Amino acid sequence: MPPIRELSGRAAAPGLAHGPVHRLVETGTAHRAFAGVAVERAALGQAIAAAIEDLAGLMAANEEDGADILEFQVAMLEDESLSEPAFDAIEAGADALTAFREALDSQIADYQRSEDDYFRARASDLEDLRDRVLSHLADGAAAAVPAGAILVGRDLTPSRFLSVDWSAGGAIALAEGSPSSHVAMLARSRGVPMAVGLGAIPDGPFRAAILDGERGRLVLDPTEAELAAFGAARADAAGRAAREADVLTRPAVTADGVAVKVMINVAEPAELDRLDPEICDGIGLVRTEFLFTGRDGLPDEETQYRAYRRILEWAEDRPVTIRTVDAGGDKPVPGLTLDGESNPFLGVRGVRLSLARPEIFRLQLRALCRAAVHGDLKIMLPMVTVPEEIATVAAMLEATVIQLGSDGFRARKPPLGIMVEVPAVAVVPELYAEAAFFSIGSNDLTQYTTASARDIAAVAALNDPGHAAVVALIRNTVARGAELGIEVSLCGDMGGDPAHWPALLRAGLRSASVAPPLVGRVKLALAGLRAGG
Amino acid sequence: MPPIRELSGRAAAPGLAHGPVHRLVETGTAHRAFAGVAVERAALGQAIAAAIEDLAGLMAANEEDGADILEFQVAMLEDESLSEPAFDAIEAGADALTAFREALDSQIADYQRSEDDYFRARASDLEDLRDRVLSHLADGAAAAVPAGAILVGRDLTPSRFLSVDWSAGGAIALAEGSPSSHVAMLARSRGVPMAVGLGAIPDGPFRAAILDGERGRLVLDPTEAELAAFGAARADAAGRAAREADVLTRPAVTADGVAVKVMINVAEPAELDRLDPEICDGIGLVRTEFLFTGRDGLPDEETQYRAYRRILEWAEDRPVTIRTVDAGGDKPVPGLTLDGESNPFLGVRGVRLSLARPEIFRLQLRALCRAAVHGDLKIMLPMVTVPEEIATVAAMLEATVIQLGSDGFRARKPPLGIMVEVPAVAVVPELYAEAAFFSIGSNDLTQYTTASARDIAAVAALNDPGHAAVVALIRNTVARGAELGIEVSLCGDMGGDPAHWPALLRAGLRSASVAPPLVGRVKLALAGLRAGG
Repeated sequence: MPPIRELSGRAAAPGLAHGPVHRLVETGTAHRAFAGVAVERAALGQAIAAAIEDLAGLMAANEEDGADILEFQVAMLEDESLSEPAFDAIEAGADALTAFREALDSQIADYQRSEDDYFRARASDLEDLRDRVLSHLADGAAAAVPAGAILVGRDLTPSRFLSVDWSAGGAIALAEGSPSSHVAMLARSRGVPMAVGLGAIPDGPFRAAILDGERGRLVLDPTEAELAAFGAARADAAGRAAREADVLTRPAVTADGVAVKVMINVAEPAELDRLDPEICDGIGLVRTEFLFTGRDGLPDEETQYRAYRRILEWAEDRPVTIRTVDAGGDKPVPGLTLDGESNPFLGVRGVRLSLARPEIFRLQLRALCRAAVHGDLKIMLPMVTVPEEIATVAAMLEATVIQLGSDGFRARKPPLGIMVEVPAVAVVPELYAEAAFFSIGSNDLTQYTTASARDIAAVAALNDPGHAAVVALIRNTVARGAELGIEVSLCGDMGGDPAHWPALLRAGLRSASVAPPLVGRVKLALAGLRAGG
Repeated sequence: MPPIRELSGRAAAPGLAHGPVHRLVETGTAHRAFAGVAVERAALGQAIAAAIEDLAGLMAANEEDGADILEFQVAMLEDESLSEPAFDAIEAGADALTAFREALDSQIADYQRSEDDYFRARASDLEDLRDRVLSHLADGAAAAVPAGAILVGRDLTPSRFLSVDWSAGGAIALAEGSPSSHVAMLARSRGVPMAVGLGAIPDGPFRAAILDGERGRLVLDPTEAELAAFGAARADAAGRAAREADVLTRPAVTADGVAVKVMINVAEPAELDRLDPEICDGIGLVRTEFLFTGRDGLPDEETQYRAYRRILEWAEDRPVTIRTVDAGGDKPVPGLTLDGESNPFLGVRGVRLSLARPEIFRLQLRALCRAAVHGDLKIMLPMVTVPEEIATVAAMLEATVIQLGSDGFRARKPPLGIMVEVPAVAVVPELYAEAAFFSIGSNDLTQYTTASARDIAAVAALNDPGHAAVVALIRNTVARGAELGIEVSLCGDMGGDPAHWPALLRAGLRSASVAPPLVGRVKLALAGLRAGG
């Protein structure tokens, strides 16, 4: 039986790549011979120092993305309590590699068992630094990654990702992993094609591979025919990219001349540095969670103010909708969210959490009102369920502006709108007419309307934004909004997928906010569709 | 400052009671003096034997409710590995009480830490048997409960509840506890008023107390005025009970002459033994989870068939709607449901789970088709999200009847209807016209429509079936059902609460299924309402 050459998994970052196969070394199977207590002690100390030096180099090269992850790892490595059990094991006769691996594995297991989401999430950081130190201790150095290689392995850590030079292309194919992992997010933002969940990848050796990040597919040692098909697909993709580039900075218009606003979703201010504001009609969604998930704890007013102001200045006079912190659900924030909820997606998240922690929420409102003097800022509340939530925040906002004035700050009260993502709102939007605007959050609206969690693979087929009920709720929101004179947009993933636009146009939608890399694709798709009556 | 005499908590079982205060002994603070290894070994052995004897007596007296809980506890006590660590501790010089308490506390902690819902739920059974053994070991016997006493304590175990003679009245007031606990369910089914979550209850001593299970309120040492008010409230309640008894076996009709079907919800066949079928228009919901949560594992076809047949025979020619097993969510079933889902309410539950485990589901369909020859049986699917789920089950049902025929069984294919509880269905019921009937599950419909879990206290105020959106979805389901000629009923808690009936009648609802003790209350309330045009 010939070895399996084609593996199918899940798409994690789009794009097509062809290149040499580079197998990621499993530090779990590396080994080292014991050379006496003094030698092993010295070797471990040097390996830790070398790992810290690696991380410092990576931090300098990756100022924007992932720097906080690296900083955390350096802090962990510099903490002696991390390596103490390993040094003890060396005294008892273990080699440095085994000693460090066992010491870290035990701590990683503790993190993984933690009741606390934050600590569980940190386990992968510990794995990352364990592997980094072990690679310095292993007999034989890890081979360098050739330019444009397809990295193949069980899983990949964020710092290993950041240590590779992706400027000559390349891609990632993992037996395990998840499209929502941190490393997948990094791959998408760097444009590195990536597939995960491919299952056991045969040992090879293989000379080359094709990685299709769009379909989550890996082809090892491709045949001539497969290479020809790949070449055609890449030419298609290049052609589409060129056509997308053509429309990128032009307003979006359908084939029958109906204008559609296309705005962008922003998760971190650093994303904007590489973007031309001309590509969009504004920012439809600024997620503010980035301010709350850093290692430094909750942000102060000044830090928030500077971040919001930086975004407004990028946008010039375009509208910028900033969403108040949407923690909870699948986004735990230490010191803010509640641990141990039976069903966090149906728990204290979004504006529910902000209203439960008014002292933290008030700081965010102050920073927003101060930033509002620097551009066209709107405030958006996530997870609104009852009209009283809008009224309560409106009153807090009023009081905040007055207080800022008496504190001697320049400030302005921005319009206050809401996400339409809890089905209750989409069923009777007319009860929420106090909102200055509606922005449909199609991801959560779909998850609640179909009672299917976004992160449970077994119900992925039911979690379908194309379900007639979801589309009907969008149509109802657009129609009621029009009657009430309330602007309606959509900021979920549905708006970035051309396949959904025929239904969205029929539902009357004329405005959406999408991930920046999808602007061209959406504008191009709209140009080929008719909005109809 | 006078001691606090009035405490407010949550209602757990309705009813009013006045009686002497009986404080539940905390076995956590009981103690015993060490009297030598041999004496302590013997004392522990005798205490375990006495506890087993207690449980056997309780099982004989409680054949229907809770017998499986007691059976499980006997099996645990008879397992030597449970008490082995305690006997070891006695050898090391501990007294029998301390040794057993510490051994059990350690095992209880293991159960509570388990990732598995089933084991976590069993922790309270272990606490129960720990306390039972300790009460036999404690210096000084636990005082007997006086007739009609108000039991006051931190929490109450199911077996302690079952060991009290409630025939002379009495009530329960707990500092902690939950209305959804097993003991609260037992209290409701026995008609014992109960309040939970009262917070720290002062030490007393108190001569007497009033317990209002309707409002979740405890009044210690009531004044003359409070006793007079209590007397009046009880007289009111008695008057209402008499008026309810009057209408109990009569068809429900509104003040303006509109007939409303009132059916009953049944969770265990034993509930029916005390009920007259004349009180209802049939059984609108038989929950079949009772068959799957016993200690004997998943039920075979014959066991299911006999249980369904017994219910149909009770109902005579009245319709009986049996819901296929609705496991998952907050109802884990060992060997059936998935552990570790991030949001079990949005995961693999209801018909999703049945379709994922067709070998188990087929047995249930076989048992239902066989039982169907003994009455007017209908099958109902929980958690339907897409029309394809109905089509798949319809095809399985068709094949099941054919197979049963060739296996030589008498069988009939019952009508196949669905719960309307996933918002998607209530938004576009017309897409589910293949269903023979709709039954609105207001509890889940509310939880998903408001994105607020039923079991997260912090979002309890948002989890409101009276939200205009929930009512609008009910109205839509009733209206589309009428257009399609599909019968619509409602089987959630909303139908048992008279406060919601004005809205339900306005929404066009003319049929509901409620807990048996609420039938009279609902019929009486309907008699005082106008259905209008």
